[in-house]
Amino acid sequence: MKPAKRTRRQSQARAQRSKRAELRPIGVIRSSIKNRREAPKQGSEGAPDAWLEVHPAVAQALDGLKPGDELIVVTWLHQARRNVLKVHPRSDPRRRLTGVFATRSPDRPNPLGLHPVTVREVAGNRLRIGPIEAIDGTPVVDIKPVLCAIQRP
Amino acid sequence: MKPAKRTRRQSQARAQRSKRAELRPIGVIRSSIKNRREAPKQGSEGAPDAWLEVHPAVAQALDGLKPGDELIVVTWLHQARRNVLKVHPRSDPRRRLTGVFATRSPDRPNPLGLHPVTVREVAGNRLRIGPIEAIDGTPVVDIKPVLCAIQRP
Repeated sequence: MKPAKRTRRQSQARAQRSKRAELRPIGVIRSSIKNRREAPKQGSEGAPDAWLEVHPAVAQALDGLKPGDELIVVTWLHQARRNVLKVHPRSDPRRRLTGVFATRSPDRPNPLGLHPVTVREVAGNRLRIGPIEAIDGTPVVDIKPVLCAIQRP
Repeated sequence: MKPAKRTRRQSQARAQRSKRAELRPIGVIRSSIKNRREAPKQGSEGAPDAWLEVHPAVAQALDGLKPGDELIVVTWLHQARRNVLKVHPRSDPRRRLTGVFATRSPDRPNPLGLHPVTVREVAGNRLRIGPIEAIDGTPVVDIKPVLCAIQRP
């Protein structure tokens, strides 16, 4: 009976693992911004352009992208704190404590960053994009074409 | 020496775990759409309103949200396939195979859904939102106020 039990337990563990929402980085940001202190709060607030290096294993998923395209780059804000539920908006202590879901604070239960950018250049598995406030080394988890600008009334 | 070694190995494992980009659902979609076949491709294509139930442990992160707010709800598309790198856009076989990063296909390495919605009602830890094409039971991983509409030129 023991081997059968172990097999069942193993396959349950496998099912559990595959259900888990674990992000696999598909690339990384290469930027002149080296730490959180240097980063503007939003890309539109004076952020530079940066390179997005896509891992060779998924590079064919870039096929169809071209300069001028508007994208949402989704990052994993690896330096953020996940146990923060309320913040002063824009770190201004005069503004009242507000739930992180009503703000764009990087500190939040799942620290995902959404960055609207324009593609400047496509060079193999690298995209020149901007403006973007993400710091050097930030993992990228998804890239999507912008819909909101054209589909919202 | 052995206990010291084990402690070091344990703390390395702990560090590894904490670095891993593992999403923790913060809520769930309760919708009249029960499967992928019934779901429109985008919220703006005839999707209904739905309830977003936020887990009590993080409900205070909703503080500040009110009816009329425009949000991006980020979901984990738990029924999507993660090994798809190219698709025919909008499942139209006449359109040429395109990299998933140039499309909004739910099948992609990290199946995150971005849903622009309007808040209709706030009822404790539940938000009535819409229109949204996500199916019933879809895990929600983040909620952010819309910036793109007001900040993009």
